[in-house]
Amino acid sequence: MNNKLKITFLGGVGEIGKNMTAFEYNNEIIVVDAGMTFPGDDLPGVDVVIPDITYLINNKDKVKAILLTHGHEDHIGALPFVLAQINAPIYGSKLTLALVENKMKEHPKVKYKAVAVKPKNVLKIGAFSVEFIKVSHSIAGSLALCINTPAGNVIHTGDFKIDFEPIDGTMTDLQRFGELGKKGVNLLMCESTNVCRKGYSMSEKNVGRALDEIFKVHPDNRIFVATFASNIHRLQQILNLAEKYGRKVAFTGRSMINIVDVGMKIGEISFNRENMIDIDKIDKYADKELVIVTTGSQGEPLSALSRMAAGEFKQIKIGANDLIVFSSSPIPGNEKSVYNVINSLFQKGADVIYDELAEVHASGHACQEEIKTIHALTKPKFFIPIHGEYRHLRMHKQLAMALGMDERNIILPTIGAQIELSPNSIKKVGFTIAGQRLIDGYGIGDMDSNVLRERKQLSEDGICVVVMTINNVSGDVVGEPFIITRGVVYQDEAEAFVQDTKNMIVASLKEQDLRGCDPAIIRNTTKRNVSNFIYRRTKRRPMILTIVLLD
Amino acid sequence: MNNKLKITFLGGVGEIGKNMTAFEYNNEIIVVDAGMTFPGDDLPGVDVVIPDITYLINNKDKVKAILLTHGHEDHIGALPFVLAQINAPIYGSKLTLALVENKMKEHPKVKYKAVAVKPKNVLKIGAFSVEFIKVSHSIAGSLALCINTPAGNVIHTGDFKIDFEPIDGTMTDLQRFGELGKKGVNLLMCESTNVCRKGYSMSEKNVGRALDEIFKVHPDNRIFVATFASNIHRLQQILNLAEKYGRKVAFTGRSMINIVDVGMKIGEISFNRENMIDIDKIDKYADKELVIVTTGSQGEPLSALSRMAAGEFKQIKIGANDLIVFSSSPIPGNEKSVYNVINSLFQKGADVIYDELAEVHASGHACQEEIKTIHALTKPKFFIPIHGEYRHLRMHKQLAMALGMDERNIILPTIGAQIELSPNSIKKVGFTIAGQRLIDGYGIGDMDSNVLRERKQLSEDGICVVVMTINNVSGDVVGEPFIITRGVVYQDEAEAFVQDTKNMIVASLKEQDLRGCDPAIIRNTTKRNVSNFIYRRTKRRPMILTIVLLD
Repeated sequence: MNNKLKITFLGGVGEIGKNMTAFEYNNEIIVVDAGMTFPGDDLPGVDVVIPDITYLINNKDKVKAILLTHGHEDHIGALPFVLAQINAPIYGSKLTLALVENKMKEHPKVKYKAVAVKPKNVLKIGAFSVEFIKVSHSIAGSLALCINTPAGNVIHTGDFKIDFEPIDGTMTDLQRFGELGKKGVNLLMCESTNVCRKGYSMSEKNVGRALDEIFKVHPDNRIFVATFASNIHRLQQILNLAEKYGRKVAFTGRSMINIVDVGMKIGEISFNRENMIDIDKIDKYADKELVIVTTGSQGEPLSALSRMAAGEFKQIKIGANDLIVFSSSPIPGNEKSVYNVINSLFQKGADVIYDELAEVHASGHACQEEIKTIHALTKPKFFIPIHGEYRHLRMHKQLAMALGMDERNIILPTIGAQIELSPNSIKKVGFTIAGQRLIDGYGIGDMDSNVLRERKQLSEDGICVVVMTINNVSGDVVGEPFIITRGVVYQDEAEAFVQDTKNMIVASLKEQDLRGCDPAIIRNTTKRNVSNFIYRRTKRRPMILTIVLLD
Repeated sequence: MNNKLKITFLGGVGEIGKNMTAFEYNNEIIVVDAGMTFPGDDLPGVDVVIPDITYLINNKDKVKAILLTHGHEDHIGALPFVLAQINAPIYGSKLTLALVENKMKEHPKVKYKAVAVKPKNVLKIGAFSVEFIKVSHSIAGSLALCINTPAGNVIHTGDFKIDFEPIDGTMTDLQRFGELGKKGVNLLMCESTNVCRKGYSMSEKNVGRALDEIFKVHPDNRIFVATFASNIHRLQQILNLAEKYGRKVAFTGRSMINIVDVGMKIGEISFNRENMIDIDKIDKYADKELVIVTTGSQGEPLSALSRMAAGEFKQIKIGANDLIVFSSSPIPGNEKSVYNVINSLFQKGADVIYDELAEVHASGHACQEEIKTIHALTKPKFFIPIHGEYRHLRMHKQLAMALGMDERNIILPTIGAQIELSPNSIKKVGFTIAGQRLIDGYGIGDMDSNVLRERKQLSEDGICVVVMTINNVSGDVVGEPFIITRGVVYQDEAEAFVQDTKNMIVASLKEQDLRGCDPAIIRNTTKRNVSNFIYRRTKRRPMILTIVLLD
């Protein structure tokens, strides 16, 4: 009898094993998560990066379910693209599904079936039986999975932390992890984001305490709190403080307003709607009667907060009586933008508190001791570190070995890797197409690397377009060449530059016999000449487009 | 009698008060530092950012001296541009001047006079008398300044830290700071880089101890150490360890090789040349007999280390027996590049140790308790925090106030600010042209913001060039329009895209009466049509260049 489970890592550029993983047994596939990532500066103009799901499309009929561990974009953001091609029901917590629903409103043509699940629920999907386990994370409704298969039990932690004082009163279900471990866990797949951080992550309640202290010592200031919209427990704590200190709450930022709406609707946020006011109404209240909760904690240039910092937000002028709390920390790569906003706010006279100065943010990811706790409770036979850069997975492997695991029982995944698990073995069995699809603008097609390479060259050195008309019967150059540059020369030099380039082209054309010549040859020669001419003059290699028209 | 000193902040985009400051008394100006900064992603294609020295050029005859606190690029990097326009002698430590000399070799036409100074030297320049004070920093030969003027004593710390176990055996001269404080310091200008960090910075010797431990427990590995070329004391420690553990040293990276050369020549580095080998010769030695010291600790894409990580470095193939130590920490903004290199090295099987994992780097900047020590020793009447983003200066002001300073005696500088100091007062008196000049390619001219805006648009949405020929006598379109796009559409759609755009243009031209029309109008109409057409199709707004030729 076949007892092999095949695990395929389909997503997670930058963070291996994130975004999307497929579990395949015989003719059945269940998919865990369908997330996207935001592109870095190395992908100019790209809007979204989603996993390449060629493998799923090729095995369309096998896909029985998509399980969502939680509602962050890197776990649900690719759903509109995935559900357009894969017809399978999705499962997730109430909040996760509410966020999916919101997202899918923009893609009304994509139909799908969603089933809400709760911790301790067990789902039978063909040969799979999946149990959902409560975990704490920076978004409510987060779930780990215990995937039971003929190849043994697999525990997939999703993103998690251990918070001994969770806001919703229910902890990461350590007992259940221990119980499953006692019964026997064949494979642990555990997240690695904070595996380089020693000790324990801070409790979300500590953030509440720090914010309480800030509200207390600033009774007269207008208070702004910038945070991640999806951190519902953070929002709940801010709302509680607003009530405690008698302040009205105004929200800015579309995603913030959406999520508060969703949260209140499904009962994840409890707040008296009468204390909520529209941002347009804040003028009716004194500074000390207000809390403004806003997006933009990552320095996003178009966010409400960035526009306030730049003095471009209509309803709010930042001044000396304002206190802005960044209840967040910069995501790697965003440091500069975040500090730019902080500097601008300070320069407008406001006071700013951010995570370098006070405990106003707690990470949602487990640190070393928490990760060790999960290993100790589940005592898996095999182990695959997931969710992290390669250096994190490497470190997580070392940590597991320090806890007594055999190196041969640990596999580091890569994108596209296929790993086969049986009750007594684990091994890499191959690779499949996986990784990134770049979504740009309408998102209909993939961007190829040519487009990106071209954009990069354009951004660094600009472009020079040369149009010339020749008569290849008489061999004459008709009129003078036409030249446009963009991003190449400084305004006060542009005229002389263009004239000199024209003269150079004409002079070099006159040296050649153009009668009966191939326009392609003239085009290439001219291109090379212009490129060298510009390089000598500016030390730049702009993109050169040469167009030869025949008269 | 006039007793007013005017202080003008000429440089320091990003870090206020850095790069360049002018001190002016009557008809005499002394300039402190002439540094540059490297541009961020917001300035695509810009090579170097230097201070705008219009103010100095307008007061050319007044400038009597340029004093250099130390040899880092953000303090000496603008000298080739400054000395080309300002004729004044430069003063600095032996190492600083050796680095300047190296740099000026590439600008042989620029003549200048350089005078080496030592700690405790006092320089008379007109009404100024300047004393140089020994400080520790991440480069040897760093100096603070005590500028004595009829407006009182001004202490300018330059960049510094307090290292109780300095590698060269001579500490930051705390006694002298105290002595000067006792006599009376009118104004303190103190650096602020690490003012948000609690406690004390780590001693450079700790780095040596950590590296020693690494060498000890990896006797058989080939060891690589990546660090900043200019950190001579770090290099010295690595060289000492090489001798202690019987390893030969090979250097890679031009700046590394240069600085070792300079350092040995002036006696700042002591090492037996026989233990130094050329990188081409490393094959003759066993792994355990080698240390390779390399640049590239910031993930610079063209550095030796990045090329090794990518498998593109001819002489060295990274493998399982290699241990790479990043004796550095990522400069803000470089995190992604650095971790990319680290991930690639791990993936090649090497072991990597970086600052998150061990104490392999020490900052060169004072933390809170060190900064407080300088305040306590100098007890200034007035205070200007320098060298930091606005948030750092703000924090430094709060720190000074916590130490008992009157808020009215503290001024936060901005770029271009002019501040007037007298024995009993300090105030902002105005602004002058200052800030950034962007140097690109040959560096002859300034880049205007047009060029940058164009490059940005090009990088995000690409470009579409349309060339069409019309006969405005007959009103005919001659041939079909010619279209080239770059960075706009995906290869497999390009053909259809171009054809559809052509058809659209021709159709819309046919609706117009082109007889006797103005080509400029046709150009603009077509541009708008094409832009809208592409937007509808791709949701992108590439730059459109339309060229209308008359037949």
